[in-house]
Amino acid sequence: MDIEETAERIRTGDRRALARAITLAESSRADHRERAEALLAVLLPATGGSVRLGISGPPGVGKSSFIEAFGSRLIEEGHRVAVLAIDPSSRVTGGSILGDKTRMERLARSPEAFVRPSPTGGSLGGVARRTREALLLCEAAGFDVTIVETVGVGQSETAVADMVDLFLLLLPPAGGDELQGIKKGVVELADLVVVNKADGDLLASARRAAAEYQSALRMLRPTTADWQVPVLQVSAREERGLDEVWQAVGRFRAALGEAGLARKRAAQARAWMWSEIDDSLIRAFRAHPAVAARLAEAEAAVSEGRQPAATAARELLAAFLGRT
Amino acid sequence: MDIEETAERIRTGDRRALARAITLAESSRADHRERAEALLAVLLPATGGSVRLGISGPPGVGKSSFIEAFGSRLIEEGHRVAVLAIDPSSRVTGGSILGDKTRMERLARSPEAFVRPSPTGGSLGGVARRTREALLLCEAAGFDVTIVETVGVGQSETAVADMVDLFLLLLPPAGGDELQGIKKGVVELADLVVVNKADGDLLASARRAAAEYQSALRMLRPTTADWQVPVLQVSAREERGLDEVWQAVGRFRAALGEAGLARKRAAQARAWMWSEIDDSLIRAFRAHPAVAARLAEAEAAVSEGRQPAATAARELLAAFLGRT
Repeated sequence: MDIEETAERIRTGDRRALARAITLAESSRADHRERAEALLAVLLPATGGSVRLGISGPPGVGKSSFIEAFGSRLIEEGHRVAVLAIDPSSRVTGGSILGDKTRMERLARSPEAFVRPSPTGGSLGGVARRTREALLLCEAAGFDVTIVETVGVGQSETAVADMVDLFLLLLPPAGGDELQGIKKGVVELADLVVVNKADGDLLASARRAAAEYQSALRMLRPTTADWQVPVLQVSAREERGLDEVWQAVGRFRAALGEAGLARKRAAQARAWMWSEIDDSLIRAFRAHPAVAARLAEAEAAVSEGRQPAATAARELLAAFLGRT
Repeated sequence: MDIEETAERIRTGDRRALARAITLAESSRADHRERAEALLAVLLPATGGSVRLGISGPPGVGKSSFIEAFGSRLIEEGHRVAVLAIDPSSRVTGGSILGDKTRMERLARSPEAFVRPSPTGGSLGGVARRTREALLLCEAAGFDVTIVETVGVGQSETAVADMVDLFLLLLPPAGGDELQGIKKGVVELADLVVVNKADGDLLASARRAAAEYQSALRMLRPTTADWQVPVLQVSAREERGLDEVWQAVGRFRAALGEAGLARKRAAQARAWMWSEIDDSLIRAFRAHPAVAARLAEAEAAVSEGRQPAATAARELLAAFLGRT
């Protein structure tokens, strides 16, 4: 099928065409990549129309239940919601998030939702690129809320924060030691903190945790000027507090402003371009025969203090750039 | 003077030889760089013998007074202390830290101390490399405590944390809003938090702040396994609490263990090599005529959503690698 026809089907909301386009973007075959990029180039003017949300949180906090409840609520309000996932570990774990579609049964069944598991395999850079492209394709297909979930492996939260308008951190109704599992730096990416499971026996505990988080957040500089990161409490199970989350998303977008949002997205696109360039340069560098032949010995020499790092770097670079 | 002779002078603690070697390492002239690297290669076996401390904190917290008091105390105990600074902004500000040597008068006068202002000018990568090399040269000259101070511009705290054994964050005796100035991520680099100015009228305030920091730190995963980041209180002015800081440094090193410290330093050396490679690759990329001719337009097209980031990156890379 030709690019223009596929693009038109996606623009009119054809879910199968969208799914196939994402598969194309996820492929590592050169001809598939080329088609995916051509398609994206045609669809680019139709993108940008969604509220882009990143969601992360430690294992067991109830990310799926929250997204299921929150997404369903948004659909009741007339939105169309796409849910993507980023999980560079899925090659190893066999897909630890979204792999099991039944985890978001209600959403997956709704004609107004589109739930896509994480692309499997590859480096974080590769997975992130494919998720970004999937996000743009979903926007072209008319989804006006795109949610990118991350399971929180390696640097995946940063990758997600770099592709969304707002990064929401979901936390359990307990503070202190139970939070030791949260990775360094993740709390500081949050534009919005939401305490889940604020229900039943955990209600008091959730209230205490929210106060504790709020006080800890005062130590951190806000991600955006004129924005104090709020800490909300929800119950995904009882579907309470969800409207307040959506309102906070709206307040955050208002604080950013139209121009601020455009600047943020333009900076993200440029950073994406540079991260692609970085990744490819390092790949080309490592693959260069003269570098590949010396790299292991250079790393060992530097690790063991037999050679200064700067000298090893200079010699490898000279080999790569053909100045040997 | 030949390399071996200079190396020998440095090893025997000749301060002028050390100062000249650091000047050589700071130079951007190719022949100077080459000599500096040759010198470092000879001296490398004599390095590694110091406790490497990074110190950062917001403006006004009293970093210089703390380092002056802490360093002087260590010298009383028989240590030899080198103080380096990393400040990529010093080109602009005319040297905002250590530029004024009188700020550490006592230390600067002591024969057992060596105080070196930040190298001026250049990118953070360049300044960081020169500071790392200066640190190694100071170790070769027999300093057994090396302190790297950062003023906290850009990513300089991360650069410092990546070259030291322990990163100490100095904070003012007041919490909450007054801490909004601390950059994102800096708190999470800290292995040790020290509240300064715990004296006079501020004593109660310092105690409250320390408790607040301690509770906030529970939200963050420790930098090192089996290490709970302690929050200490000191008065640089009254020279109180300084021994406790040094004891905490010792406990941290014990928690790391010999093998852990060796692993940390080996990983830092490898990361340094890779950061040199990254920097140089990007520099070579930007300087390539075919890239330079297209880069501005590519960045604009990506920012404005006229071209997918991946496509722009691929085209620029093809130009760089000569596959056009």
